[in-house]
Amino acid sequence: MERIRIAVLGASGYTGADLVRLALAHPAIEIAALVANQKAGQRMSDIWPHFMGAGGLPPLARADAVDLGRADVVFGCLPHGASAELLAGLGAARIIDLSADFRLDDAGIYAEWYGVTHPAPHLLGEAVYGLTEHARDHLPGARLVACPGCYPTAALLALLPLARERLIAPEGIAIFALSGVSGAGRSLREPNLFCEIAEGAAAYAVGRHRHMPEIEQELGKAFGTAVRVSFTPHLVPMNRGELETISVPLAPGVSSADLRAALDERYATEPFVQLLAPGIHPATRMVRGSNLCVLNVFEDRIPGRALVVAAIDNLVKGSSGQAIQNMNLMFGLPETIGLEAVPLFP
Amino acid sequence: MERIRIAVLGASGYTGADLVRLALAHPAIEIAALVANQKAGQRMSDIWPHFMGAGGLPPLARADAVDLGRADVVFGCLPHGASAELLAGLGAARIIDLSADFRLDDAGIYAEWYGVTHPAPHLLGEAVYGLTEHARDHLPGARLVACPGCYPTAALLALLPLARERLIAPEGIAIFALSGVSGAGRSLREPNLFCEIAEGAAAYAVGRHRHMPEIEQELGKAFGTAVRVSFTPHLVPMNRGELETISVPLAPGVSSADLRAALDERYATEPFVQLLAPGIHPATRMVRGSNLCVLNVFEDRIPGRALVVAAIDNLVKGSSGQAIQNMNLMFGLPETIGLEAVPLFP
Amino acid sequence: MERIRIAVLGASGYTGADLVRLALAHPAIEIAALVANQKAGQRMSDIWPHFMGAGGLPPLARADAVDLGRADVVFGCLPHGASAELLAGLGAARIIDLSADFRLDDAGIYAEWYGVTHPAPHLLGEAVYGLTEHARDHLPGARLVACPGCYPTAALLALLPLARERLIAPEGIAIFALSGVSGAGRSLREPNLFCEIAEGAAAYAVGRHRHMPEIEQELGKAFGTAVRVSFTPHLVPMNRGELETISVPLAPGVSSADLRAALDERYATEPFVQLLAPGIHPATRMVRGSNLCVLNVFEDRIPGRALVVAAIDNLVKGSSGQAIQNMNLMFGLPETIGLEAVPLFP
Amino acid sequence: MERIRIAVLGASGYTGADLVRLALAHPAIEIAALVANQKAGQRMSDIWPHFMGAGGLPPLARADAVDLGRADVVFGCLPHGASAELLAGLGAARIIDLSADFRLDDAGIYAEWYGVTHPAPHLLGEAVYGLTEHARDHLPGARLVACPGCYPTAALLALLPLARERLIAPEGIAIFALSGVSGAGRSLREPNLFCEIAEGAAAYAVGRHRHMPEIEQELGKAFGTAVRVSFTPHLVPMNRGELETISVPLAPGVSSADLRAALDERYATEPFVQLLAPGIHPATRMVRGSNLCVLNVFEDRIPGRALVVAAIDNLVKGSSGQAIQNMNLMFGLPETIGLEAVPLFP
Repeated sequence: MERIRIAVLGASGYTGADLVRLALAHPAIEIAALVANQKAGQRMSDIWPHFMGAGGLPPLARADAVDLGRADVVFGCLPHGASAELLAGLGAARIIDLSADFRLDDAGIYAEWYGVTHPAPHLLGEAVYGLTEHARDHLPGARLVACPGCYPTAALLALLPLARERLIAPEGIAIFALSGVSGAGRSLREPNLFCEIAEGAAAYAVGRHRHMPEIEQELGKAFGTAVRVSFTPHLVPMNRGELETISVPLAPGVSSADLRAALDERYATEPFVQLLAPGIHPATRMVRGSNLCVLNVFEDRIPGRALVVAAIDNLVKGSSGQAIQNMNLMFGLPETIGLEAVPLFP
Repeated sequence: MERIRIAVLGASGYTGADLVRLALAHPAIEIAALVANQKAGQRMSDIWPHFMGAGGLPPLARADAVDLGRADVVFGCLPHGASAELLAGLGAARIIDLSADFRLDDAGIYAEWYGVTHPAPHLLGEAVYGLTEHARDHLPGARLVACPGCYPTAALLALLPLARERLIAPEGIAIFALSGVSGAGRSLREPNLFCEIAEGAAAYAVGRHRHMPEIEQELGKAFGTAVRVSFTPHLVPMNRGELETISVPLAPGVSSADLRAALDERYATEPFVQLLAPGIHPATRMVRGSNLCVLNVFEDRIPGRALVVAAIDNLVKGSSGQAIQNMNLMFGLPETIGLEAVPLFP
Repeated sequence: MERIRIAVLGASGYTGADLVRLALAHPAIEIAALVANQKAGQRMSDIWPHFMGAGGLPPLARADAVDLGRADVVFGCLPHGASAELLAGLGAARIIDLSADFRLDDAGIYAEWYGVTHPAPHLLGEAVYGLTEHARDHLPGARLVACPGCYPTAALLALLPLARERLIAPEGIAIFALSGVSGAGRSLREPNLFCEIAEGAAAYAVGRHRHMPEIEQELGKAFGTAVRVSFTPHLVPMNRGELETISVPLAPGVSSADLRAALDERYATEPFVQLLAPGIHPATRMVRGSNLCVLNVFEDRIPGRALVVAAIDNLVKGSSGQAIQNMNLMFGLPETIGLEAVPLFP
Repeated sequence: MERIRIAVLGASGYTGADLVRLALAHPAIEIAALVANQKAGQRMSDIWPHFMGAGGLPPLARADAVDLGRADVVFGCLPHGASAELLAGLGAARIIDLSADFRLDDAGIYAEWYGVTHPAPHLLGEAVYGLTEHARDHLPGARLVACPGCYPTAALLALLPLARERLIAPEGIAIFALSGVSGAGRSLREPNLFCEIAEGAAAYAVGRHRHMPEIEQELGKAFGTAVRVSFTPHLVPMNRGELETISVPLAPGVSSADLRAALDERYATEPFVQLLAPGIHPATRMVRGSNLCVLNVFEDRIPGRALVVAAIDNLVKGSSGQAIQNMNLMFGLPETIGLEAVPLFP
């Protein structure tokens, strides 16, 4: 098999590192370049000792020291802002960006939520929103793919089929989410210290998390109308994993069983989305380290509402795994290649 | 100070053990008897090594080997069913029950949710629902106090003042809760094993948790109308702590700031309920090991709704601490005595 | 590639489950049978929800309902005693046993430490002790391979080359070990409950852990003399991982640098044993989920001694991964096939 | 009771915060000043939200803005170097220093291990080494008390009685230690991030931890001869707690039972040191949040050696609790006052 040469921008973050982990397991990927400006010159295993046994990785390099044009595809694992700025200058290569920079269609909304002027608004129209299961038709020809945020991935996999078929109403969707700590990245901030997190749980960014407009944008397209959702994330003491419990208003005459049936039909043949048997509660341990999303639907005690629950690994299906799933489709490979590993439990 | 002689039924569970921990720090309590049928004859420190250094505890005894009538008050830390059965036979003593047996007014609802016929329905009318901050008038004369469940404690502290003043509407309240594992007790069940829980999170008992009817009952009284609430608990990998994020429908013309003001007014002088400064997120680490409840209110992105967040330690304010707070009031002691310890962090 | 048909006895334990996880990633394995007497009739994903997305697994069956003779190799993941009893009756198949039953050469020592008469002492002579890196010559023709215990695996990888070359003395070796909780298995015992373990650490089985005679036996062979080692395991709150810090007496004139050089030479070309750069501390996060062992040597402050530190994943290199590594060699496959996955971090 | 006015230097670290927690529970302490230069002007609860419910704390102040001479005693919870520099300038007050600055008798050894010239060598002779159980005679008149490091506290409580009675030999003592993460402080370093620590264990600072010379100094005094000990710390994923397993060489004719008897005799009446019943393994969960040290002795498999195991809470008996225990004795108070709380479990 001819290998796809990839470059990873931002190999010093958790997302970049997990992309490299998955790339090493992918039979059709050749890792051509690893970029991390502040760690340039070091080996990947110097900053990520779990790669101690992985041979053949290129040394970390500065972005300007690498000919990114020689890569078949560039994965952007940089913070927002930095990502678009750097990627906008890359001419020929195909780009899979894992930052928030190309997810929102509207540069004004981007500026409002991210507090900066978008560095490359001319590219927004071109970018494909890469929620793979709902973007398949657009991926093969795409030059620029924006991978969804981790929270939007789980939320939209749960909600898009229901919204498209008008089984749920657009007003009053409330998403309660739990996340492991890797979602906060490897940055040196007091709230990320072990002792601040272990043996505790808290809500954060209530009413102002940046994944909210992204969920609203995609749900809005599915409903064909502007949508406002309530989204409340919580941080819990685990490394990986994301769980979302979503309270949805049912369309008239629709039952929770109808939602279940719709998800069943939509995802029955999907390799990475599993509707659980009735009554089984999604849990992050069912997906740890894997590209799976597990889903289920429950009756709500409030008449006219139902609960949809979804779990993913935020670093895999919520980030690097989905990025590779997208790459597979962009390059005409089997969708599951390199992503077949069973979750790690316990 | 003359000491109150207490007996603890069910000293072999986490709730019973934490009651003993708190009782040891209480200057007006004398622990007269510790009952644990299956561990009778052992010392408390044999089954709870953290009591290694605590002198003066009576040995564990069988219920029928102890003259419970000689205690000034009996704390019931038994499973539901067993609790009412045993307590119903106790004539004179005052009783503070931490099980679910005397929380519901209606033996029919009890039977429906707990799957057993109530062993002592004649006592239901007498029992005071001991959510201390909302039960003060009824505690001094009470013979039988039913301590609220851990989830209802946090939910009702957050919601009762809002419901009573009709600042929120009764339809469409959705409670999303996180709990540490001690809430599941010390029973030998596979889901309670370390490896099944560590590094993971999951929803459980969706739509059918037994604390739901209890919340509905008390909210219903506050609203003056029957209420159905959505309640979804989740288990996260920590020992102690409970966090509830509650989506509430605002009454017409009411804002989230109005909710905050109402909670502020209601709880301003409460020693154990703290409304946090605007924007501060309640976290279980703020209350670990203590009898505190911390609260805050946030704007919701969905018009006409707000988010109320509450955190408690499930074993203290959610259980044994509140039981002692109730005892203090039943016996005319200062409410905070024995409960002043600052939370343990980190 | 023609596939090797494997049967797994004891698929309901952590070891069995991790063997299945690894087998699913192995291109030359066909899982022919999964045996779990008490769970017979259920699907693997019923008891191990992380296999939710893994298709093609046979249902769990009783041992007597499966023709184990049709498997090319049987993996025994049963408790000691049960393992030898069942495996002794299997005629033709090759056997890789992960229990303790065939590790000790001497049925008397087995009886002394395990408290039962050995069920099949006639097989002890035939069994190959499967510490792969030190058993390669004996594996291709082996019919019965006894995989080492998790603790002995790390200890012996660290010590055997040093003992064989007499760089260390046989008297006074002290092994201090840490283990994650999965090593205790999925059994319903109070000490395995989440709340008993989280936020704590303890030594256990001091002076009487059953892996001690196994370490002594193999070290004794390497030294050519009977050896007594001190072995003290500790339980720490994590799922996977094992770390051993070993204090060794240096032979006269030998330095810690000499030990390092010897390990470097011995393991330089080993795919699964990595000597870290000088000064780098082995950590279990470097090996989580993988078949790696990482090692290093440090000067000790006590003259005449040195410290050797080793880390493995107890369920992989310490158990199921090494079992598959052994299978690869028994069947003439490349040693690393199916075991190349990079560790999962964070 | 007349209250002792205390000032806390370094209230923004875990040690300072836990000192304040304990001081709030102490009936004879008045917190007069809280110093934290970089957080000056904030309230304690702004940086430590678990003090949300604790009234009456002074605001954080700069050291030069507080009249430390008005405090009856100053607790130094600053990093080494900074502590001695600041404390050396304080004339009259009594000082209890929790840093390393006054623990070592020899400024040369201090410079060697801490890499800086000692800021106040003239005070070293005056400082009392405050391992309370072994310093009682010297505390009442002391002006300057140096609290032991956390690791030395556990090690010396275990070893001093054995060394003084020559039940163990001075050569070949090996200490293997586990610590929770709070020992590393609240500083923003990558190794302290949640994801770097959770689900893992590692040795650190092997052969060069700064608590080594301190242990050697005090053991040397007990033995009456210079001693070198091997000390290997490990970091495990928990907030609090420290466990030390110590391999000791027995003096000729001495058994592990003799060690046990000696510890029993020495500590039988000590309120904070508990020798466990034979065979019971010390665990950090037995001491969490409390000033207890639990100990036990085990036979070693190597003839002529024994194992002594000790557990403490590194922030309490290993730091702030012992500091208050020392204060109690310095001021003629009952030794246990303010420190009676039972450990928090689970």
